[in-house]
Amino acid sequence: MAVPRRNNLVLESVRRLLRMGATANLLNLLQKQHPADLAQVFAELKERDCHAVFNVLVERNGKLAVEALSEYGPEKGSLLLADRPAEEIARLVQEIPSDDAAALIDHLPEELSAVVLELIRPEPGGGPSELLDYEEQTAGRLMNPNVFALSEDLTAGEAITAIQNGRDVEMVFYLYVVDERRHLVGVTSLRRLILVSPDTPLKRIMTSDVYSARVDTDQEEVARRVASYNLLAIPVVDPENKLVGVITVDDVIDILKDEATEDVFRLAGVSTFDGVLSGPFESLKRRMPWLLVNLLTAFGAAWVVSRFEATITQVVALSFLMPVVAGMGGNAATQTLAVIVRGIALGELTWSNARQALMKEALVGLGNGIALGLVATFGAWALTGDWALGAILGLAMIMNMFIAATAGTLIPLGLRAAKVDPALASSVFITTLTDVFGFLAFLGLATLFLGFLHTAP
Amino acid sequence: MAVPRRNNLVLESVRRLLRMGATANLLNLLQKQHPADLAQVFAELKERDCHAVFNVLVERNGKLAVEALSEYGPEKGSLLLADRPAEEIARLVQEIPSDDAAALIDHLPEELSAVVLELIRPEPGGGPSELLDYEEQTAGRLMNPNVFALSEDLTAGEAITAIQNGRDVEMVFYLYVVDERRHLVGVTSLRRLILVSPDTPLKRIMTSDVYSARVDTDQEEVARRVASYNLLAIPVVDPENKLVGVITVDDVIDILKDEATEDVFRLAGVSTFDGVLSGPFESLKRRMPWLLVNLLTAFGAAWVVSRFEATITQVVALSFLMPVVAGMGGNAATQTLAVIVRGIALGELTWSNARQALMKEALVGLGNGIALGLVATFGAWALTGDWALGAILGLAMIMNMFIAATAGTLIPLGLRAAKVDPALASSVFITTLTDVFGFLAFLGLATLFLGFLHTAP
Repeated sequence: MAVPRRNNLVLESVRRLLRMGATANLLNLLQKQHPADLAQVFAELKERDCHAVFNVLVERNGKLAVEALSEYGPEKGSLLLADRPAEEIARLVQEIPSDDAAALIDHLPEELSAVVLELIRPEPGGGPSELLDYEEQTAGRLMNPNVFALSEDLTAGEAITAIQNGRDVEMVFYLYVVDERRHLVGVTSLRRLILVSPDTPLKRIMTSDVYSARVDTDQEEVARRVASYNLLAIPVVDPENKLVGVITVDDVIDILKDEATEDVFRLAGVSTFDGVLSGPFESLKRRMPWLLVNLLTAFGAAWVVSRFEATITQVVALSFLMPVVAGMGGNAATQTLAVIVRGIALGELTWSNARQALMKEALVGLGNGIALGLVATFGAWALTGDWALGAILGLAMIMNMFIAATAGTLIPLGLRAAKVDPALASSVFITTLTDVFGFLAFLGLATLFLGFLHTAP
Repeated sequence: MAVPRRNNLVLESVRRLLRMGATANLLNLLQKQHPADLAQVFAELKERDCHAVFNVLVERNGKLAVEALSEYGPEKGSLLLADRPAEEIARLVQEIPSDDAAALIDHLPEELSAVVLELIRPEPGGGPSELLDYEEQTAGRLMNPNVFALSEDLTAGEAITAIQNGRDVEMVFYLYVVDERRHLVGVTSLRRLILVSPDTPLKRIMTSDVYSARVDTDQEEVARRVASYNLLAIPVVDPENKLVGVITVDDVIDILKDEATEDVFRLAGVSTFDGVLSGPFESLKRRMPWLLVNLLTAFGAAWVVSRFEATITQVVALSFLMPVVAGMGGNAATQTLAVIVRGIALGELTWSNARQALMKEALVGLGNGIALGLVATFGAWALTGDWALGAILGLAMIMNMFIAATAGTLIPLGLRAAKVDPALASSVFITTLTDVFGFLAFLGLATLFLGFLHTAP
C-alpha cells in the first residue's frame, strides 16, 4: 500500500485563494483540474470550505462540478448538492451520464430525490429515473442506457458514417450490432471497420459470440465477467436479449474496490460504508450492534469459566494462561477465515475443491497447534514452574487450533450454502467458538488432571 | 459476495472425457473455451488431471494453452509448464504478450527460468527478458512493450493507413503520438481520426496533456491513476519521456484485486499469496511466524496477570471476566483498524484529515465503551452478584475501548509515516496493547478497590 497520490500544491492554493476570497483566481484554478483531482480536493477540505469551493465552481461550470461530485462518491457528493433547489439539481445531474446521475439522486434526502426524479422524468430513452426502477446492485441500475448500436444490415462504410454522425456517446471501443428489433446479435470494433473495404457487410466482420449481462445480473457477477474476460465494457440486455445499456470497466473497478472494502469491514465487524470521516454517531450506530453481540457471547464464555470456579480457586495460575488458549485459537481462526473468505470472493474456492481445502486447513491447524503447543508448554513451565500445567496448556492449544481451523473453513462454507455472505457472520461464530471451546478444553483438562497440578495449600 | 461463476457443464464434460480417454473430443471441447474459462477448469481439477488436460491442449493449440496458464495465474501456471523442455517453453511463451510471458517465466524454477530467458533473449525491442530487468511491482515490469505509436508529423489519413498496416497490437483505443525521437507528445483516438478530414495534421487533433507512468512508478500508483482518471490504458515512458510501453486496464484490475487480498490477509496475520489450495507446509511456514509472535505477546499478557495472583486468589470471579475486557478491546480495535487501514489504502485518509479521524475514533471508542460498559456492569452483577465487580468491569472496558480506538488510529498512521505497510504490523501491536492494557486496567482497579469486592473467606 503506497502513500496516496498528493495534490498538495493544488490543495494549498485552493485554501489560500479561499482565505483571500479571490474567487476569480480560485475558479480559474479549479477549472483546470480533472474531476478526479477536484474530488481529492473535496476530500481534503473541511466541510465548510468544501461547500464554498463547490458553490464557486457550480455557478460557472456546472458540468465539471457535478463530474467532480460523482468522482467524490455519491454518498458524500449528494450532501454538497442537497442544499440547492430541486430545479437546479435536476438541470445539473443531466450533465453527466445517467448511471452516475442515478447514483447521486439516489443518495439525496428522500423527498428531494423524489422531486428531482419527477422533474427529469420526461427525458426519453432511459434517463436516470428509469435506472432507479431496477434493483440495487444489479446491472440495470449500474448501466449507462446511452449505448451506441449499429444495425446488422449496414456495411462497414455505412457504419463509419453512422459513427461520424453519432451523438457523443460514452463508449465507442466496442461497437454493438443489433437486429431490427434491437436484439443484440454481435460486436465489432472501429479498428475492424477501417481494416475492411467499405462495402463489407457488418455481419461478416462482427463476432456473434458476445459476453453480455442481463439487467437483473448481480453487479458482482458483472464485475467478475468483465475481469475474467478482460473486457473494456459489457453490453446489458433485457430478458428478451434487447440491448438496453452498457457497463464500462471504470464502473467495474469501483465495484471491485467496494467489494474488497466490504470484505475487510465485514471480517472486522464493521458495517460497510463506515468511512474514516463519517460522523461519530453514524459510526457508533454501525459498530455497536456487532460489539454488543460480541459482549453477549463474551459473557457466555465467562459463564463457562465460572463453572470451573472450584478448579481455578485451587490453581490460580490457570487464570493467567486462559487468555493464551482462547487468543491463539482466535488468531488461528482469523487466519483461516481470511484465506477461505477471500478464496470464495475470488472464485478460487469452489464446491469441488472444498474438501481439499478443509483437509489442508485441518492439517495446518494441527501442525501449528503441535509446534506452538510445545512452545507454550515451556512458556507455562517458565511462568509457573508447573510442568503438568504446561502440558495441559499445550494439549488444549492443539485441540483448540484444530477446531479453529476446521470451523474457520466449515462456517463460511456453510454460510455460503445458506446464501449468507460468508464474510458477514463468520467472525461472530468463530470467536465465540474458539473462546468457549478453548476455555472448556483447558479448564476441563485441568479439572480432570487436577491431581497432577500444583494446587493452593 | 456472490457465488462464483460456474462452469459445471464444461467441467463435468472435461472430467468424463478424461476418464474415457477420449482425447479428440476433449481437445475439441477445450478449443472452444475462452482462456479465462479454461483457467477456471484448471482451478477445479485435481493436480494430475490438470496436467493431463494441459498436456492435451498444449500439443495442439499452444497459444490457447499458454493464454489459459496466464489467466490461471503465473504462480500456478508456471507449475504446469515446468516439466516441459526449455526450448518448448521458450517457443510457447512467445505466443502471448511479453508482460504475461515475463510473469510466467519469472515463476519457473530459477535454473529453468534462466535457460528460457537465454533462449528468447535475441528477440528485438523489449521482449519478456528486458521486462524482467525492471524492479518488481513497477510499471516497467508490468507494461506491454508492444505499444503502437503514431508520428506527430502524420495527417489523420496517414495515421489511419498506418493503423491499417500495423501489426496486431494489444491496444488501439488510445493512439499515442510521439516525436521523431519517440518522446510521448500526445494522445488521440481512432474515433477522432475518422471524424476529421484526412488531411488534418495529427498535432491538431491530439490532446497533449497525457496521463502517463514512468518505468519506475510503483504498480499501485499506476493502478490508482488509471482508476482515478477512468483510463482504459496508461502509456509508460522512460526517464527521458520516451514511450516504451503501455499498461492496460485489465492488468490494473489484477493489481487492485491482489492489493485487496493483501490488505485482508495482512490484517488477519497471513502472508500474502497463501491461497485456499497452497500446500499445507507452505501455509504452515506462512502463518506460524505470526502466531509465534502472538504467542509470545500472549505470554507477556499472562505475565501481567500473574502479577495480580494475590488479588485473583481473593476474588476468583475476576478470572471469569478478564477475557471480556481484553476481548472487547480487541474487537473495538479491529473495527478501528479496518476503517483506518482501508481509508489509507483508498486514499481517503490523508495527513490533513488525520486529526479529524483521530478525534472521531476517540469519540466512538468512548461512546461504545460507555454504552457497552453499562451493559457489562449488569452482566457481571448477574453472573457474580457483585455490584462493585460490575462497576470495575465497566470502568475498565471504557478505558480499554478508548485506548483501543486511539491506538487503532495512531499505530497504522505511525507505521505509514515510517513507510511500513500499515496493514502488516498493526494487528500485532494492537492486540498486545489491548490485552495488556485491559488486564492492567481491570486487575489494577480490582486491586485498588479490593475492599469493596466480595472476597473469598
